[in-house]
Amino acid sequence: MKLVYKIWVEGKTKAFGEGPYKLLRKVEQLGSLNKAAQDMNMSYSKAWSIIKRAEKELGFKLVESNTGGVGGGGSRLTSQAKTLLTQYDEFYREAGEILTKLYNKYFGELL
Amino acid sequence: MKLVYKIWVEGKTKAFGEGPYKLLRKVEQLGSLNKAAQDMNMSYSKAWSIIKRAEKELGFKLVESNTGGVGGGGSRLTSQAKTLLTQYDEFYREAGEILTKLYNKYFGELL
Repeated sequence: MKLVYKIWVEGKTKAFGEGPYKLLRKVEQLGSLNKAAQDMNMSYSKAWSIIKRAEKELGFKLVESNTGGVGGGGSRLTSQAKTLLTQYDEFYREAGEILTKLYNKYFGELL
Repeated sequence: MKLVYKIWVEGKTKAFGEGPYKLLRKVEQLGSLNKAAQDMNMSYSKAWSIIKRAEKELGFKLVESNTGGVGGGGSRLTSQAKTLLTQYDEFYREAGEILTKLYNKYFGELL
């Protein structure tokens, strides 16, 4: 037996959770929302709508476009998005530790 | 913004979480798996399969049949099911408190 959990943040609708998190990490890694969407077997329009919905709910930009320069184009995370991902990592890590302890406390002998 | 979370226990498949919890509470309240299913707008076979799957994963019985007596028939929770529900309540309450604190710690200024 193991504990499984999903945690997300809601405003009027789902604002931020595992889906946007993974997508933003891919954008960070690949430097492009289009490549991130492809890598996750998702249409560009789907990826775009995930970002836009999260931005609307959160009230700040998550992704901005690179223009010009060598290679040109592409997308990168805003500094607020980077902060959000870092905080989310820390939050999830600490939540995981605590939930595991609670699971053992309440279900350790039962399950 | 608010934090939303779902937590469940898995063995080979999903073993116990919000769905079986609510169904078992209804069985306890109404004294009948059939009535509980109706109350939750669920077919009897669906309710039955939820209970059976959870029992199989958990390795103990959750519901037993009343036979005979005044009123006859009906279903009631096993003592292990009652213990499970109590522990689940406590687990969820404490998890909720801690997750709210963590949310404020990591996202309080950001969101």
